[in-house]
Amino acid sequence: MHPRLTLAITIMEALAIFAYAFSGLLEARKRRLDAVGAFLVALVTAFGGGTVRDVLLSRRPFYWVEHQDYVLFIFAMAIFAPLFLRVTSRLFDQRAMLVTDAVGLGLFSVSGTSIALDAQMPAFTATMMGVVTGVFGGVLRDVLCNEIPLILRDSRPYAVCAFAGCWMYIGLERLEVDTIYNVLISTAFILIARLITFKFDMRLPH
Amino acid sequence: MHPRLTLAITIMEALAIFAYAFSGLLEARKRRLDAVGAFLVALVTAFGGGTVRDVLLSRRPFYWVEHQDYVLFIFAMAIFAPLFLRVTSRLFDQRAMLVTDAVGLGLFSVSGTSIALDAQMPAFTATMMGVVTGVFGGVLRDVLCNEIPLILRDSRPYAVCAFAGCWMYIGLERLEVDTIYNVLISTAFILIARLITFKFDMRLPH
Amino acid sequence: MHPRLTLAITIMEALAIFAYAFSGLLEARKRRLDAVGAFLVALVTAFGGGTVRDVLLSRRPFYWVEHQDYVLFIFAMAIFAPLFLRVTSRLFDQRAMLVTDAVGLGLFSVSGTSIALDAQMPAFTATMMGVVTGVFGGVLRDVLCNEIPLILRDSRPYAVCAFAGCWMYIGLERLEVDTIYNVLISTAFILIARLITFKFDMRLPH
Repeated sequence: MHPRLTLAITIMEALAIFAYAFSGLLEARKRRLDAVGAFLVALVTAFGGGTVRDVLLSRRPFYWVEHQDYVLFIFAMAIFAPLFLRVTSRLFDQRAMLVTDAVGLGLFSVSGTSIALDAQMPAFTATMMGVVTGVFGGVLRDVLCNEIPLILRDSRPYAVCAFAGCWMYIGLERLEVDTIYNVLISTAFILIARLITFKFDMRLPH
Repeated sequence: MHPRLTLAITIMEALAIFAYAFSGLLEARKRRLDAVGAFLVALVTAFGGGTVRDVLLSRRPFYWVEHQDYVLFIFAMAIFAPLFLRVTSRLFDQRAMLVTDAVGLGLFSVSGTSIALDAQMPAFTATMMGVVTGVFGGVLRDVLCNEIPLILRDSRPYAVCAFAGCWMYIGLERLEVDTIYNVLISTAFILIARLITFKFDMRLPH
Repeated sequence: MHPRLTLAITIMEALAIFAYAFSGLLEARKRRLDAVGAFLVALVTAFGGGTVRDVLLSRRPFYWVEHQDYVLFIFAMAIFAPLFLRVTSRLFDQRAMLVTDAVGLGLFSVSGTSIALDAQMPAFTATMMGVVTGVFGGVLRDVLCNEIPLILRDSRPYAVCAFAGCWMYIGLERLEVDTIYNVLISTAFILIARLITFKFDMRLPH
């Protein structure tokens, strides 16, 4: 059974990187950046969160050093951005993008937590590293594009969903749930929490 | 005598973190960020300077990993921000905030210098690491909030006071003044320099 | 013959740091920052790219820790900025600045690639580290000054020239060209590519 689950995680990972890179491309388009700008913003959006986490944890090699194929894919996405955005906007409507992005948020946050626990971080720090992994790509994207990060502006729960899911991962880890199931369950939890709070237009106080 | 001095430093440290986090909350309020945004901005303001210094020095663990109680305190500050800001604005008028912030600038800069010296940095680099520790939290706060960092815009001496105090610390260190006295004296120096230059509205050329 | 080539590289390095710091000073002037602000922006522009690369590669000591004389030079540049900018604007017209900056882009990118290869990075990552070294100082400068980084906005090839030159360096390295010649050739390639694309006003698609 495990190989199939591993495959599921690999697919989710690819979806997540795609969704994050895509949001970078969209932002770059809005700003009328050229192909190089689009590539850099997409790259930073997709790998920024994990890279900041790894710098904080003194962990190497970076994901994007080990998975150059993803970098090349984003490179191609950026070069063929006009074509690519047209095709994608037909295949992925806004709802599909919301789901894909939430899969990314879930998987990145949960795997960030898992990696921080492996690096002997205490539980609370591990959940914060998880949230950093999930949201910092978007923060860097917005800083580069000279905007207040969306996550700071938008009062719809985003980081909070990730935070809750990271604690769920740690809880299930303590209950000795098998890691691969745990990743799937906690990611699903974040995905669902995000979709429900979005659907019912729940807002954080401010 | 030492335990009392150590207590003094612990109190100053708590004041400093409080003052920096508070300035983050204020900025977040101005931008109408939600509770999560306020927490992130406050956190980055309070611990950003020390974290950047530790990344530059390859030093771990981070202060906020070892002192999770402070993180939780900032978490509570952010959640109860409306209440908290009302109470605080009654207890701390602008003058009190100026003093508290200057204590933070002094303590962070001096301790940053001390840590850089322990990491075998040459004197000049150590003073720069001290200034980074003192001012980078505010820089990151302003970058996140999409403003030119206050420290770059405001011509009233801020980094310069910190810089002078860091050199004082190194000077007294060479004179073999006991570290704990040295921290107190140099921090007091930065505090006083900041208050005097502010009071007489001294300005840097530009 | 080697000592003369080493001298050539040292001169190019000084030119490069000067050009980058200078662009930071100009930006600071435009924003009417004070001397401290100008110093910080110039410093970040000159050493930001190399510092980010070294953080990514876990490499120490930083260049600016080992070469404090350059830091002091930038310090003096910032303090005497009004005088300095007047003299320089007479000696260096815009064309001279373009060339000087392109020398910086070339040398920083090529040396960044070389350092990344030494750190056992795969070729593609090494070229990306090279580009980061060449362009990130300017990115940080613009983020600090609250602008969308020029490199993202300007469709005239900049990062692309650096990227091509980094691949040339790796190619010549595989052909076992002596490192010092290779640095000179690849830097010259980037310089010329930058000048040609600029001269003919070539643009990247967007």
